[in-house]
Amino acid sequence: MAQNQSSAPDTSRRSERSRRAIYDAALALVAEVGYPKTTIEGIATRAGVGKQTIYRWWSSKADVLLEAFLDLGNQAAEAAGHVPYTIPDTGDLAADLKSVLRATVDELGNPAFEAPSRALAAEGVVNEELGRRFVAQLLGPQLQLYVDRLRTAQETGEVRPDIDPRIALELFVSPLAQRWLQYTGPITYEYTDTLVDYALHGLAPR
Amino acid sequence: MAQNQSSAPDTSRRSERSRRAIYDAALALVAEVGYPKTTIEGIATRAGVGKQTIYRWWSSKADVLLEAFLDLGNQAAEAAGHVPYTIPDTGDLAADLKSVLRATVDELGNPAFEAPSRALAAEGVVNEELGRRFVAQLLGPQLQLYVDRLRTAQETGEVRPDIDPRIALELFVSPLAQRWLQYTGPITYEYTDTLVDYALHGLAPR
Repeated sequence: MAQNQSSAPDTSRRSERSRRAIYDAALALVAEVGYPKTTIEGIATRAGVGKQTIYRWWSSKADVLLEAFLDLGNQAAEAAGHVPYTIPDTGDLAADLKSVLRATVDELGNPAFEAPSRALAAEGVVNEELGRRFVAQLLGPQLQLYVDRLRTAQETGEVRPDIDPRIALELFVSPLAQRWLQYTGPITYEYTDTLVDYALHGLAPR
Repeated sequence: MAQNQSSAPDTSRRSERSRRAIYDAALALVAEVGYPKTTIEGIATRAGVGKQTIYRWWSSKADVLLEAFLDLGNQAAEAAGHVPYTIPDTGDLAADLKSVLRATVDELGNPAFEAPSRALAAEGVVNEELGRRFVAQLLGPQLQLYVDRLRTAQETGEVRPDIDPRIALELFVSPLAQRWLQYTGPITYEYTDTLVDYALHGLAPR
């Protein structure tokens, strides 16, 4: 028993080290060679683990990568002092949306995030199955937080009751996404602040 | 002289036939094997022309493809009975934007357009130089038409004078682009109509 009690934390530390090495290897590899050429074997070699270690935890390279991205998002949020995947509710919708979008601007400019994210996003454009998994597992839950925040704003009267929050969020989220994906324009805090103001107040005179 | 007069149209018809065969081959090939594996040689073989014929007119595969896309857009617009690359100005901004976005919905669902467009867009996400050429030569001129239409709407008082039209257009153009690129939601006329209404009138109560 004493033997088991002292070895359990060691095993868990070893597992955690392997898991992190596998995430890092998967993200680095997809950034370097793209999704089609990334293999479980390549990830294992780079992480210094056996293929079987990977197959014990995940069933495909898509699974490894999607989890590595979830972990990356959590790490980035913690490093920035945010709770991952939340939108503040200070009672001022415009201020809350601007603050989250500014944090997204920072995240998009983070080199650890950018290359692997672009590789996965690019593959999702031509690989519908991966694209839809990416939405279901990563992007969708993030968008849902905006839906929830907009619903609260409908309750407090900051957003019209007849608005569909799932479409409304796209007025400020999608422009930033397109500028990042397609290089259609510069990405700054001033830009995302402007998107929020235009979306809330509209382009037509009041 | 009589000889020359009769042979000139033949040469021109032959050139036009070769040019069209090259466009078709380039679009089909990029859709099938992706941008990195598309080569001038592969395009020439598939089009049934010599490599030199392609190099006489274009200096790179990116040039061929970008021109093939411009041509595809013109053909699609003509087939649909539209003048290519215009936005109507009936004096009703909402109606004009809805009509153009509905035409874009049709274009995005066109199989001749979809596969090659996805291949080029995906490459643009990870290949900044190609992404920026794509914007400069294809996407940018299309977005400029929205800038122009919004400026006219500012003159007639349908859009507030302090709005930046280059950012404003993204409130309805980018959501559609993101749904198409990332499979984040269904693409319908009802959806694009809603985007225009939300963008013009805003999410906040008036």
